Amino acid sequence: MKIKVAIAGARGRMGTTAIEAIEEAVDAEVVAALDYKFDGMHLHNASVNEEKQGIPIYTSLSKLVEEHHPTVLLDVTDPDAVFTNVKDALSLGIHPVVGTSGLTKQELKQISEMVETTKTGGIIAPNFSIGAVLMMKFAAQASRYLGDVEILEMHHDRKLDAPSGTAVKTAEMIMENRPPHIQGHPEEQIHLEGARGGDVEGMKIHSIRLPGLLAHQQVLLGGEGELLTIRHDSLSRKSFMPGIMMAIRNVIGRNDLIYGLENIID
Amino acid sequence: MKIKVAIAGARGRMGTTAIEAIEEAVDAEVVAALDYKFDGMHLHNASVNEEKQGIPIYTSLSKLVEEHHPTVLLDVTDPDAVFTNVKDALSLGIHPVVGTSGLTKQELKQISEMVETTKTGGIIAPNFSIGAVLMMKFAAQASRYLGDVEILEMHHDRKLDAPSGTAVKTAEMIMENRPPHIQGHPEEQIHLEGARGGDVEGMKIHSIRLPGLLAHQQVLLGGEGELLTIRHDSLSRKSFMPGIMMAIRNVIGRNDLIYGLENIID
Amino acid sequence: MKIKVAIAGARGRMGTTAIEAIEEAVDAEVVAALDYKFDGMHLHNASVNEEKQGIPIYTSLSKLVEEHHPTVLLDVTDPDAVFTNVKDALSLGIHPVVGTSGLTKQELKQISEMVETTKTGGIIAPNFSIGAVLMMKFAAQASRYLGDVEILEMHHDRKLDAPSGTAVKTAEMIMENRPPHIQGHPEEQIHLEGARGGDVEGMKIHSIRLPGLLAHQQVLLGGEGELLTIRHDSLSRKSFMPGIMMAIRNVIGRNDLIYGLENIID
Amino acid sequence: MKIKVAIAGARGRMGTTAIEAIEEAVDAEVVAALDYKFDGMHLHNASVNEEKQGIPIYTSLSKLVEEHHPTVLLDVTDPDAVFTNVKDALSLGIHPVVGTSGLTKQELKQISEMVETTKTGGIIAPNFSIGAVLMMKFAAQASRYLGDVEILEMHHDRKLDAPSGTAVKTAEMIMENRPPHIQGHPEEQIHLEGARGGDVEGMKIHSIRLPGLLAHQQVLLGGEGELLTIRHDSLSRKSFMPGIMMAIRNVIGRNDLIYGLENIID
Repeated sequence: MKIKVAIAGARGRMGTTAIEAIEEAVDAEVVAALDYKFDGMHLHNASVNEEKQGIPIYTSLSKLVEEHHPTVLLDVTDPDAVFTNVKDALSLGIHPVVGTSGLTKQELKQISEMVETTKTGGIIAPNFSIGAVLMMKFAAQASRYLGDVEILEMHHDRKLDAPSGTAVKTAEMIMENRPPHIQGHPEEQIHLEGARGGDVEGMKIHSIRLPGLLAHQQVLLGGEGELLTIRHDSLSRKSFMPGIMMAIRNVIGRNDLIYGLENIID
Repeated sequence: MKIKVAIAGARGRMGTTAIEAIEEAVDAEVVAALDYKFDGMHLHNASVNEEKQGIPIYTSLSKLVEEHHPTVLLDVTDPDAVFTNVKDALSLGIHPVVGTSGLTKQELKQISEMVETTKTGGIIAPNFSIGAVLMMKFAAQASRYLGDVEILEMHHDRKLDAPSGTAVKTAEMIMENRPPHIQGHPEEQIHLEGARGGDVEGMKIHSIRLPGLLAHQQVLLGGEGELLTIRHDSLSRKSFMPGIMMAIRNVIGRNDLIYGLENIID
Repeated sequence: MKIKVAIAGARGRMGTTAIEAIEEAVDAEVVAALDYKFDGMHLHNASVNEEKQGIPIYTSLSKLVEEHHPTVLLDVTDPDAVFTNVKDALSLGIHPVVGTSGLTKQELKQISEMVETTKTGGIIAPNFSIGAVLMMKFAAQASRYLGDVEILEMHHDRKLDAPSGTAVKTAEMIMENRPPHIQGHPEEQIHLEGARGGDVEGMKIHSIRLPGLLAHQQVLLGGEGELLTIRHDSLSRKSFMPGIMMAIRNVIGRNDLIYGLENIID
Repeated sequence: MKIKVAIAGARGRMGTTAIEAIEEAVDAEVVAALDYKFDGMHLHNASVNEEKQGIPIYTSLSKLVEEHHPTVLLDVTDPDAVFTNVKDALSLGIHPVVGTSGLTKQELKQISEMVETTKTGGIIAPNFSIGAVLMMKFAAQASRYLGDVEILEMHHDRKLDAPSGTAVKTAEMIMENRPPHIQGHPEEQIHLEGARGGDVEGMKIHSIRLPGLLAHQQVLLGGEGELLTIRHDSLSRKSFMPGIMMAIRNVIGRNDLIYGLENIID
């Protein structure tokens, strides 16, 4: 029997990618979409229609559950909608898998408590790219031995913010892992402001923005006489598909809350 | 109290590096050297002398143990000497740490049996560079998820053999980890012999030899829409020091045999 | 006044890209399309229609010229059509700009002779990517000083042939530039067939094929104590646009034949 | 007949390297050393002695010239000595080849005037690494077509200053070549000070400092759909030798002043 998945945020770009991933899998299917509008209509290849074709849309999760009995709710909505969706899912015994970023610490705490009460496990993954998650995980592990680290992230010049969320998250994971450490030359002389990058506990983050780039990150870890570099290049949202499927398969039967795909990857 | 280390192969390049590493550490010291000649003489900064200065040299391990009570024997000799040294160490209750490559499967099996009998643990590490070991370990782990792999190793043009031992070892570790897998385009047309590199179960190994290079390796792991690259650059034998110290500290109290530094690195 | 351009191969992918490039330029316009069918119909956004909208299609170049007076014929057809198109253009005094590869040496010779007779200049450019052309040009120049070279080209695993045309062309340009030279260790021992790549006069070409790659090439040039690497990454056909426009602007007023964009780039 | 070279700065590291380079060449020889002390003594393998062995040392250039008739004075001293040495050489009709950095604009202007008067040509090269010079030259050329540029320089963490002189020089050469240009997203939001690097007319310079690095620089040039990267890795001062010899051979017969090795490299 296939895993029955309901999806919130089905009309967005991540939603479209996720539906494709699930429908390509032999062991899962999308049974319904949760939306804030279009109740009673259907979704087919990113377009909404009134004919009974494609994925049925519901504005009420309880009605959706009653009629389609999903095991998992995949949420790829936005910071405004995700918290309510997850709470509703947990109270109905549906496992949430969340790819939406922007949950506050307060919200995460509440979700964690609900998971404990309901014994319905969930997975929250800010990044579904297995390659990116492996990069962060490996960088954190390696920093226990090679504690001098600089992060270089490179994106197309239409990206507005710097540094990237992934670079910041990588730095945080390294800070939790590397031993207390003073990095760099104490008497460094900087002749051009900013040349040494942004500082995170001595670690430096450098952001490059150029046309001709997509989304890339390198973590450089130096030791006496050697350098370890872990690099991830991302071409398309297709790279999220294996991570989405991994989370859906893994959440079933869980009774705890997992934060970050890195915790279900060996 | 410092860890007392005896060292075999002390006069070689690795031996000199190892002595430096141990003497820089606050928790270990070299108490004596095991050699096939120069019995009764002393070793100081790679030169042997008859004055009682530096590290005393012994040609008999039992006499060395009797007089200096080492806990660990670090062996950085050669394929001819290492097996006897390790057996002697185990029979005397000394923990062997071996950086010499070239032990045969037969010899490894015998050592393993002796460790079980004597309950004296040992560590055999063909590569003491933590960066290189992490690269191999991460590549093997990542190949579980990103199963299409090519290995690119680059060395100075004075290196005689291709591919490098590290490249082959990396391919072997990946083969043990990635799921059964057919890699590449089945209808590939090769117009220049060798252009696609050396084949190891579909994985390709490419060896570059140029002046201006030292010792470098990249493992490229591809997935749909993403690429993960793990690269190690090695500048000098100094990169072996942390690995040597890690093994010496870790072997104490062990009663099993560890093969490969990757097994004592988290 | 805008440069009037006729285009052959307008319905193909390169043709569509070229039309976009020309129409975005302030100093050029597409006046008509040359095709082997659809005479009298019109082309608009890659679709052919019978209404008089978009670019008029002709199967006869002389009729096209008579009615629309182009200065340049841009040919992005295929090996079968290009030779006739170029000859027809030259005999009508139209400057050919050719992006189609596959002209034989014999055909090139004939074109060269016609250019001399007609005094109508032309440009034949197998690669319109300025970045790729610069890479090849720089690699050839640098090889005069750093004569030990290896070429590494990396493409997605749907690419059938290896090595890439660009890698072979790069090797040829280097052979014309570097001094007579024996590369590599004469006593090299290869333990895995193909590991050292494909050989072109001692230079090695290595082809990597992985999902997660697009189209990339690195030329590594080694010297005593230093390495120069020239790398080109290609993301999309959009990278051809500036090269197409450069050729169209440059061909006007020419009375000679240019082979390769590198000859009009300083 | 061999080119007779006098050398100033012979006892320094660059001097030692230069002497080695010249003595390895078949067409040049070191005839004497100019120094501020040790007059009448000799220099052999970086050590000064009183025996008449090795290169004779002079504190007076005119006496040196009188006795040894050099054609070239190679100056690898320091900012304090170089200006006087060059003026003395020119007034004696000796061609100066200068590898010392730190000449002021005022001093350069005076040297230029003296060259014009004396018709004795000279070469001033702040960087003798041909690979580094080619990198800068190519980057400047490419920036005419690919005008969006970021520079990434990476050095060991014992380097005190950032950015490197080569990075700044590269930026200057690009500024002279690329068309007027606004780079980057006008609405960029920087959440970590310094993350976007040091700014030079919109171009960014990023300096990485880690153990395990030596001396490396990458220039990234982006265009629509493509990226060109030019990278130089420097391992040792040996990389300066070919540049030193090139300058010595080229300066003979010159009656003009050359600033930068890039101007004698095609």
